[in-house]
Amino acid sequence: MSEAKVKFESVFPRIVAELEEVLVQSKLSKEAIEWYKKSLVYNCVGGKANRGISVIDTYRILTKKSELSDDEYYKAALLGWCIELLQAFFLVSDDIMDASKTRRGQPCWYLVPKVGMIAINDAFMLESAIYILLKKHFKKETYYVDLIETFHEVTFQTELGQLLDLITAPEDEVDLSKFSLEKHSFIVIYKTAFYSFYLPVVLAMYMAGITNEADLQQAKDVLIPLGEYFQIQDDYLDCYGDPAVIGKIGTDIQDNKCGWIINKALQKANAEQRTILDTNYGQKNAECEATVKKVFLELELEREYQEYEEAVVSDIRKKISVVDESRGFKKEVLEVFLNKIYKRSK
Amino acid sequence: MSEAKVKFESVFPRIVAELEEVLVQSKLSKEAIEWYKKSLVYNCVGGKANRGISVIDTYRILTKKSELSDDEYYKAALLGWCIELLQAFFLVSDDIMDASKTRRGQPCWYLVPKVGMIAINDAFMLESAIYILLKKHFKKETYYVDLIETFHEVTFQTELGQLLDLITAPEDEVDLSKFSLEKHSFIVIYKTAFYSFYLPVVLAMYMAGITNEADLQQAKDVLIPLGEYFQIQDDYLDCYGDPAVIGKIGTDIQDNKCGWIINKALQKANAEQRTILDTNYGQKNAECEATVKKVFLELELEREYQEYEEAVVSDIRKKISVVDESRGFKKEVLEVFLNKIYKRSK
Ligand SMILES: [Mg+2]
Ligand SMILES: [Mg+2]
Ligand SMILES: [Mg+2]
Ligand SMILES: [Mg+2]
Ligand SMILES: [Mg+2]
Ligand SMILES: [Mg+2]
Repeated sequence: MSEAKVKFESVFPRIVAELEEVLVQSKLSKEAIEWYKKSLVYNCVGGKANRGISVIDTYRILTKKSELSDDEYYKAALLGWCIELLQAFFLVSDDIMDASKTRRGQPCWYLVPKVGMIAINDAFMLESAIYILLKKHFKKETYYVDLIETFHEVTFQTELGQLLDLITAPEDEVDLSKFSLEKHSFIVIYKTAFYSFYLPVVLAMYMAGITNEADLQQAKDVLIPLGEYFQIQDDYLDCYGDPAVIGKIGTDIQDNKCGWIINKALQKANAEQRTILDTNYGQKNAECEATVKKVFLELELEREYQEYEEAVVSDIRKKISVVDESRGFKKEVLEVFLNKIYKRSK
Repeated sequence: MSEAKVKFESVFPRIVAELEEVLVQSKLSKEAIEWYKKSLVYNCVGGKANRGISVIDTYRILTKKSELSDDEYYKAALLGWCIELLQAFFLVSDDIMDASKTRRGQPCWYLVPKVGMIAINDAFMLESAIYILLKKHFKKETYYVDLIETFHEVTFQTELGQLLDLITAPEDEVDLSKFSLEKHSFIVIYKTAFYSFYLPVVLAMYMAGITNEADLQQAKDVLIPLGEYFQIQDDYLDCYGDPAVIGKIGTDIQDNKCGWIINKALQKANAEQRTILDTNYGQKNAECEATVKKVFLELELEREYQEYEEAVVSDIRKKISVVDESRGFKKEVLEVFLNKIYKRSK
């Protein structure tokens, strides 16, 4: 595990203890307190924590500090953990909505014995933790309201993306006429890019005092297409990545996912290919999946993806190159993100 | 329908239109926009709207205005609708967690064709609407942050109550040793009293500019026991109310509910009666229910309830009588609440 991740995870027990203290103060029963602590650990720890750690990395770049004081580190890490809490809130509920079985190599929270649908209320309590922590640590800051409003806005954007995804691609009702590259773009930007790419940077910007509207816009103009690119890569790797490297076997085709590959295929397919896709996409069946992949091969979607990647990365680089650093925002913030993502294989 | 309710409901279409506008601005698909509007109407309208209307009633008393300007009415009503949105968020998810079938005389939202578990994300979007509306209409007010923090705090309190309720009384695992009057009191206060009684009043107080900490405390000191009393009444009526009057047949005994009646029974029961309760409570079976009711009769729980009611109402009246009105808070606010509830039969 990277040193950065070890340090980031080492503050989590303190966050759990702070939340526990709130429950103890309200005289909640011991059993319920233990339940909440278990949910916090089970659902927030065990992922890559990239989003949370990005807050600290970005804050370091913006303040030009290689060493942060313990207090400063804790505050930045706490904002990072608030993103991890937001993600936990979304993942716990997404797994119920998708009837998923596992998450991060363990059973989904709602499948843990005795949990079941209580997981819905547990998800709510993960979200609520965000605002308890923000109030405790940031209430005195001038940007306190900005933090709250940013979390509210990004939460709602993610919910909008989730809604469009859910009604466009229900697992049990394949209808490819509902799909389009335009819808895919909306889903991906709203469901993933805002909370995974824009949110970590904007939180670090507030904490670093770089809050000019123009700078927030510069961040957004790069991070949203970057987040879209990241998710399109994810869709690509699901189909063409090496399972040994990405650590799972792709299931997007069988799961009727509204991913980039199928949308690109629908754009290029002739009538005959379209019929094959209509019949075979979203079927829980390895043969159908192979048939779909054969059409993908005919349509040269790997090449399409490479072309998309080169074009979008060139466009993002261009945007970064003209970023105005005069008020303290830094191109480096965006370059670091791009370099983590470009041509990744997992 | 009362005139007050007709007027309150007449502003809801404007609220829906405001929320729709946010979705249109973000270029969400028409289908998704229609989905959200349907969820808003289905889940927010059709109840008694007592909580929402209380905001307006309380604001009128505090400001001594019998007539409000259209703008003022709309702002107070909007706060009321924010409570109704919060309640909708809780009810949609509670119905999934309880596997309920109907709500307000129609199928629960998650049972509506095509909805299913998407209802979870719909619940999130009902909650998010609160903060969109607060930002749009109250951002310029000095008490904007107080409104947000109040909603956050009350939301979390409700979630704590819900958690304790869910782990104390799971429908499929009867264990009366988990029950106690103390736990019942916590569940009821946290799950119901804060959002149903304290929240409407505190919102009206902020809007009326009566925000001294001591006044908020005076409100809480009466409204929390009042809310507890209201829920204990609800538990009483479930068992002893006239189904023709309350509009439903009580199911708390069969549903293993951690209500006041069973907790009082457990406090008073001898060993023999306790064994009967252990065997028959929470069974989906009319004979078991009748057996439980026989024990309730032996324990004279109707009389216990009457005694509790007289004692708590006398205590609440005493508290109201010593309320300090010097900073603008009004006893009348609390009296109106008490009078709506005392000896109600539905
Ligand atoms: Mg999923
Ligand atoms: Mg999903
Ligand atoms: Mg994927
Ligand atoms: Mg229920
Ligand atoms: Mg319930
Ligand atoms: Mg009841």
